[in-house]
Amino acid sequence: MKETLEEKRKRMLALAKESVTQAYSTGEHAVIQAINTYNELEKAKNLIHERLFEWYGIYFPELRVSQHAYAALVSAIGAGKKQADFASIAKIAGMDQGVVERLAKESIGKDPEEKEYAVIKQLAETELRIEELQSSIDSYMKQAIESIMPNTTHILEYRIAAELLSKAGSLRKLANMPASTIQLLGAEKALFRHMKYGAKPPKYGVLFKLKDVTNAARGDKGKVARLYATKISIAARADAFSKRFIGDELKQSLDSSLERIKKNTKPYRPRPAKDFRQR
Amino acid sequence: MKETLEEKRKRMLALAKESVTQAYSTGEHAVIQAINTYNELEKAKNLIHERLFEWYGIYFPELRVSQHAYAALVSAIGAGKKQADFASIAKIAGMDQGVVERLAKESIGKDPEEKEYAVIKQLAETELRIEELQSSIDSYMKQAIESIMPNTTHILEYRIAAELLSKAGSLRKLANMPASTIQLLGAEKALFRHMKYGAKPPKYGVLFKLKDVTNAARGDKGKVARLYATKISIAARADAFSKRFIGDELKQSLDSSLERIKKNTKPYRPRPAKDFRQR
Repeated sequence: MKETLEEKRKRMLALAKESVTQAYSTGEHAVIQAINTYNELEKAKNLIHERLFEWYGIYFPELRVSQHAYAALVSAIGAGKKQADFASIAKIAGMDQGVVERLAKESIGKDPEEKEYAVIKQLAETELRIEELQSSIDSYMKQAIESIMPNTTHILEYRIAAELLSKAGSLRKLANMPASTIQLLGAEKALFRHMKYGAKPPKYGVLFKLKDVTNAARGDKGKVARLYATKISIAARADAFSKRFIGDELKQSLDSSLERIKKNTKPYRPRPAKDFRQR
Repeated sequence: MKETLEEKRKRMLALAKESVTQAYSTGEHAVIQAINTYNELEKAKNLIHERLFEWYGIYFPELRVSQHAYAALVSAIGAGKKQADFASIAKIAGMDQGVVERLAKESIGKDPEEKEYAVIKQLAETELRIEELQSSIDSYMKQAIESIMPNTTHILEYRIAAELLSKAGSLRKLANMPASTIQLLGAEKALFRHMKYGAKPPKYGVLFKLKDVTNAARGDKGKVARLYATKISIAARADAFSKRFIGDELKQSLDSSLERIKKNTKPYRPRPAKDFRQR
């Protein structure tokens, strides 16, 4: 019996649907969306924070606390800063109650009108809301990536693992990359600057955020990044293909190599960049 | 009796405090903060919307509605889009219930996991939250600027009046500007492009957003902007100095002049830009 055109069309549509569903079934895309959203929310939060700081700063310019505490303080202080609940404010600010009280009472700014304060407070609460959202996204991302990449997240922070995954595009692609490519993921601009204009070659991209890299001696940073890249490449392959958990061994060998680099560290002596330009 | 140094210091501090309080007592700064915050929130909202659209788009790529309706829909649809409450969804989307139901049931995307959907929903709600905040800021700004600039807001939209005030820096400064400067507020870049490189001179800055300018015939836009600028300059002076309400007369004369421009409109014939460059 021959298939009619309509039947064929239906069958093909079903196939296409199937393959799309398949492509999104691993949860990798969710991690990628999550990390990208997290980073964009950081930008949105900063935009709002700047505005809040500038606006409320008119009324209480002496208030200088961390970005995290500022919004909470604005909403806790209330419209009349001289009659505020100083005990709870001091707790949020992590300052001495007496200091806060003196700041508020001697402030050079007057108090905002009720209506204006209501808007400012709403602005502060929106910033806090975005912060909450970030932390839910973060904890969602943590559990999602730990189930997809148990080996990789065992040897490095889950957020850096998520950024690597996002830059690579998928776990399969990440697993197929050589360690040297992984080392430079996120450093594409610097790499092209190197290849085109002969600038110094970059040593790391996303891996720059690793604590071990940041804390390494100046001449060792590249080595540490290189070491991590090789281990990540092995871990990603285990996550993508064999699905075996080899995290503990990897971590051990990573730690002992880090130890070795630390022991052999030499005073940093910068070398002049070679001229890599094409002639 | 001579003042001691300490007493002098205290008196000076009190004076400085007084003058700062004075400077912020008119409420102009609040309007300026409000309009700037409003505009920045627009950016933050767009950042979040893009992310939301990309993320939820994986699960329901067929959903194409206005930016305003999208976030509300995402949060109304729920984790299982095939079992959603189509009656209320259709209402939000402003579409036929049958259409929405068919879209959801034949969608090529699968459903998100519960945990992932919870995060996406929170993202959508944050976007809605920012929208709410914008509308509170907007209504606060409306009443604030209408009390500061009754004449100016009588002849043009309050949001445009707020932007003019923000660009000028204060009502006093705005009132002291010649009409031609007001006409070009917000067109600084184009003006310098004109003066430096001989590009066409700009016809309007912020006033571009006026409906009467947008809807004017092509050759009349500049004339309409010019007309508005002269009337705004008169209105701003009344708001800043005499404090008399002359809005009705201004509006009448504005309308009759607009009428005249409309009647005398000629087919648009572009003229070549003169070369204003310095030799």
